[in-house]
Amino acid sequence: MLPPTAPHPDDAPSRGLFLALEGGDGAGKSTQGRLLRDWFRERGREVVMTHEPGGSALGTQIRQLLLHGDHVAPRAEALLFAADRAHHVETVIRPALHRGDVVITDRYLDSSVAYQGAGRDLDADEVRSLSLWAVQGLVPDLTIVLDISPELGRARRGAVHDRLEAEPDGFHARVRARFLALAAATPERYLVVDATEDPDQIHDQVVARLETLVGVTP
Amino acid sequence: MLPPTAPHPDDAPSRGLFLALEGGDGAGKSTQGRLLRDWFRERGREVVMTHEPGGSALGTQIRQLLLHGDHVAPRAEALLFAADRAHHVETVIRPALHRGDVVITDRYLDSSVAYQGAGRDLDADEVRSLSLWAVQGLVPDLTIVLDISPELGRARRGAVHDRLEAEPDGFHARVRARFLALAAATPERYLVVDATEDPDQIHDQVVARLETLVGVTP
Repeated sequence: MLPPTAPHPDDAPSRGLFLALEGGDGAGKSTQGRLLRDWFRERGREVVMTHEPGGSALGTQIRQLLLHGDHVAPRAEALLFAADRAHHVETVIRPALHRGDVVITDRYLDSSVAYQGAGRDLDADEVRSLSLWAVQGLVPDLTIVLDISPELGRARRGAVHDRLEAEPDGFHARVRARFLALAAATPERYLVVDATEDPDQIHDQVVARLETLVGVTP
Repeated sequence: MLPPTAPHPDDAPSRGLFLALEGGDGAGKSTQGRLLRDWFRERGREVVMTHEPGGSALGTQIRQLLLHGDHVAPRAEALLFAADRAHHVETVIRPALHRGDVVITDRYLDSSVAYQGAGRDLDADEVRSLSLWAVQGLVPDLTIVLDISPELGRARRGAVHDRLEAEPDGFHARVRARFLALAAATPERYLVVDATEDPDQIHDQVVARLETLVGVTP
């Protein structure tokens, strides 16, 4: 068993703000990320936009192995995602938070839990433990789940770009259910929005929720 | 925490024989591997010779990231080694054992514990838990530790080929101590030999020990 890890010394309360966008492909994460970035920049905040997998130089190479390679053993896949995340957090996210920046990541830990744990043949709790070890316990201040049905997600995505997008609707339905279950388990750290609403209306909901968070100046 | 994993169904008692060669660089693992391979083949056994990191096609790509890349965050490094091992076990080692073959691997799980756990800034028990999860608990029937002093290992290695080999003697002394501690903890699964002896004499010691193992026909 992996023992609980000691908190990282940089994760003191007086750091930046860490936001994650989660949800199925085609849910509009990129659009909401840009709207959020602009909102913070208009308020004078430094913003780091990033993503997983592949949010670091090493991660870009790992992403190639993951999304476009041949068969990868399920545990190897989970470990590669966790490796990408560990390096991403240590070299990109944690330094930015230490500087006091806002970090907005397109996908984070919950994507591993949802896609590998719910959709594949691994235990979701094991996948989560693995990622928590990888990042020394760093979880977002707020995770925004853009909720969308598998059918609509597929229609919005259009052409298939990688292995995960090619999975059938049943897979994406299990992924969706896992995101919602994660949000329900710790609601103080989540905002679930209906991804079929107008992007500006969704942004308004996100901003309203952000204004209740410590470290955000409206 | 990672919970203890259920044993893999292929790991029933009536499988092949799994042998690992461990020890510092320059200890003579390759020579002993070849002598062992020939010994088994003369007795009509199928032998699979393999190695870590990089004992599979995916692993070769991971090995490139690990041994020749730039800075890799310590946890990312541990996770990449574990990913390599997970894929290696699922696609190479476990199928061979299932066929009843003898598998001889140049380095396995203990190398991660020794190099990352003793030599770097991670906890050795955490590194071991990670690898045990990666391989679903598969440990060798016998691990042969070729014990050598850091000074002699350095002299034998000659030119430096990668990051680990370039570490100072103190690092290799900690690695050596960790291999010996692992062997002492479960002596029924280990054979420690003095790597400064003549290769044929070392081979004789290995064979004498093998003849006490189930599944080995002298």
